Amino acid sequence: MSLIIIGTVAFDAIETPFGKTEKIVGGAATYASLAASYFYNKCKIVAVVGDDFKKEDIDGLNDHGIDTEGLQVKAGEKSFFWSGKYHNDMNSRDTLITELNVLENFDPIIPESYQDCEYLMLGNLTPQIQQTVIKRLKNRPKLIVMDTMNFWMDIMMDDLLETIKMVDVLTINDSEARQLSGEYSLVKAAKKILTMGPKYLIIKKGEHGALLFQGDQIFSAPALPLAEVFDPTGAGDTFAGGFIGYLAKVGTINFNNMKNAIIYGSALASFCVEEFGTARLLNLSEEEVSGRIQEFVKLSAFTIEA
Amino acid sequence: MSLIIIGTVAFDAIETPFGKTEKIVGGAATYASLAASYFYNKCKIVAVVGDDFKKEDIDGLNDHGIDTEGLQVKAGEKSFFWSGKYHNDMNSRDTLITELNVLENFDPIIPESYQDCEYLMLGNLTPQIQQTVIKRLKNRPKLIVMDTMNFWMDIMMDDLLETIKMVDVLTINDSEARQLSGEYSLVKAAKKILTMGPKYLIIKKGEHGALLFQGDQIFSAPALPLAEVFDPTGAGDTFAGGFIGYLAKVGTINFNNMKNAIIYGSALASFCVEEFGTARLLNLSEEEVSGRIQEFVKLSAFTIEA
Repeated sequence: MSLIIIGTVAFDAIETPFGKTEKIVGGAATYASLAASYFYNKCKIVAVVGDDFKKEDIDGLNDHGIDTEGLQVKAGEKSFFWSGKYHNDMNSRDTLITELNVLENFDPIIPESYQDCEYLMLGNLTPQIQQTVIKRLKNRPKLIVMDTMNFWMDIMMDDLLETIKMVDVLTINDSEARQLSGEYSLVKAAKKILTMGPKYLIIKKGEHGALLFQGDQIFSAPALPLAEVFDPTGAGDTFAGGFIGYLAKVGTINFNNMKNAIIYGSALASFCVEEFGTARLLNLSEEEVSGRIQEFVKLSAFTIEA
Repeated sequence: MSLIIIGTVAFDAIETPFGKTEKIVGGAATYASLAASYFYNKCKIVAVVGDDFKKEDIDGLNDHGIDTEGLQVKAGEKSFFWSGKYHNDMNSRDTLITELNVLENFDPIIPESYQDCEYLMLGNLTPQIQQTVIKRLKNRPKLIVMDTMNFWMDIMMDDLLETIKMVDVLTINDSEARQLSGEYSLVKAAKKILTMGPKYLIIKKGEHGALLFQGDQIFSAPALPLAEVFDPTGAGDTFAGGFIGYLAKVGTINFNNMKNAIIYGSALASFCVEEFGTARLLNLSEEEVSGRIQEFVKLSAFTIEA
C-alpha cells in the first residue's frame, strides 16, 4: 500500500523582501512529498524533470524515503522553471519567468510497483494529466485528493469539471471556490461544489486558515499567526502533502480525521514559510512537529460549558 | 455594579442587495447594549439624540432592561444620521450621508446612578469624548474596553494614543491594527500595540473571525460561515457588546474568559447580520443563543492526542 503524489518537480528562483535565491529545487510534488513523508513512509512521486536535474537534487527526496521510480528524467531537455517575486505584504507576487520545458509533453507513467496505490494526491497540473493518472491505476485508490488553480478554470473548465467529478477531496483557495461556483458566499460555493463530485471540499484562506466542508458539516481551522513569513512558495503544496500523509497514516477516512489532517497540514505549511524553498522541510524533528501541533491546539481551544 | 456603554444612538438608512430601509434606529451604543443585555442585566448607556427620537424608538432598549438615564435628548436638535449602501460582496460599502447633528457638541454626562460602573465599553466616538467618560467616573472601572476606527488615526492620532493608554482592551480590525502600528504582520502589530497601554488586543477580521492577544498568548476565534449576510451594519458593535456583557456576567477577567467572551460576541454578531438593523437582536431566545454557541464549538473543535 502506498501514497502516490503527482505534480511538478522543478527549479524555482525566488525573490522576497528578505532576499533572493539562485535556482533551487521546488515544485508541488517536491513540497507535498516531503511534507507527507513526516507521517507516512511509503510515499512515491510521479513527475518529470530534464537532465539539468542532478542526482543530488533528488537526494533530498530519497533521504526522506520518497520513492522516485516514477520520476522521469528526460535526456537533452530542461526541467520546469519558475521565477517569481513577492511583494512586501507577501500575499501577492509577480511571476517573472515560466518555462514549461519538460512539462509541455508530460506523460505521467505509472511504474508497476506503484499499482499498490491506496492514497493519491493530484498536485496542481493540467486536469487531463491528473485524469490520466487516475485512469492508469488499475484499482481506484481509497482516497483521491486534488489540488487545482484558477488558471485551469480560465482556459479549460470542461476538462477540469470532468476531473473534479472523479475525486474525493478538492482543495482550492477562496477566490477559486468563488470562481468555480459563481457564488460569493463560501457556504453557498461549497454547497454547489460538493454537487460536482467531491465528498469533501477544503477552502484554503492563507493567513486566515482553512475551511473543510462535507454535507452540512463545516470545520474552521486557524492559521498560526506568524511574525515573519520568509517565503510563501510551496505552502499550499506542503499543506496538501501533510494533509494526505496524515490520512494515509491513520488509514480511516472520516470528518474527524480530516479535521486533524488539516491541522497537521497547516502545521507543516507554517514551517515551510520560515525559510526559502524546501530548506525548512528537509530537517524537521519529531519534537518540532508535535510542538507546532500543540501550538495549534492552544491557539484555537476554548471551553464553554454547554 | 453596572456595565456602562457609551456610543452613538442614531438613525440609519441602509441599502443592501437585499433591499433598503427607511430611517431605522441604529448606532454603536444601541447594538452594543442590546447584545450585552443578553448576558448582563445592569446595562446603562451614555449617548445623545435629538427630539426627532421618539419614546417608541427607545422602547427597544428599555424592554431589554437597558438604563437610558444617561441618554440625553436635545430639544430642537436632530439625531445623528448615517446612510450607506453595501456592495454585492457585503464587505465594502459607500457612505451616502453622514449628518453629525447632536453629535457635534456631545458632552457625555454621567448620571450619579452610573457611578457604580464596574465595566465600561467605549464605543467608537472621538477619543476625547471617550477619555472624558473615563475621567468623569469617580472610580476607575475594573475593565475598560475601547473600540475605535481608522478615521481617528487619520485625523487625531495623538488624542487617540492618549486614550488608548487608559484602557484594558482595544478592539480594532486588521487594517486598523496595521495602520496603528505601522507593521504588516499582525503578530508584530499586536506586540507593538500592547506596549501602547492595553493589556489585551482584539483584532477583528470580519468573515475570518478574530484574534485575541495578551503577552505572548494568542487565541484565534472562527467566524461562523454564513450562507447569507443580509445587513452587516452594527456587527462589530454587537460583537463588542456581547464580549463585555459576557465578561460582566462571569466577573473574572482572564485570558480564558476573554476567549469565551469573544465566542459569545461572535455568536451575537452572527445573528445581527441576519436581518436589517437591530431587528434580529431584539427578540433572541436563550435557546437560539446557546444553540449558536454550540455551532461555534462544533465549528472549531478537533481532538489531537498529545
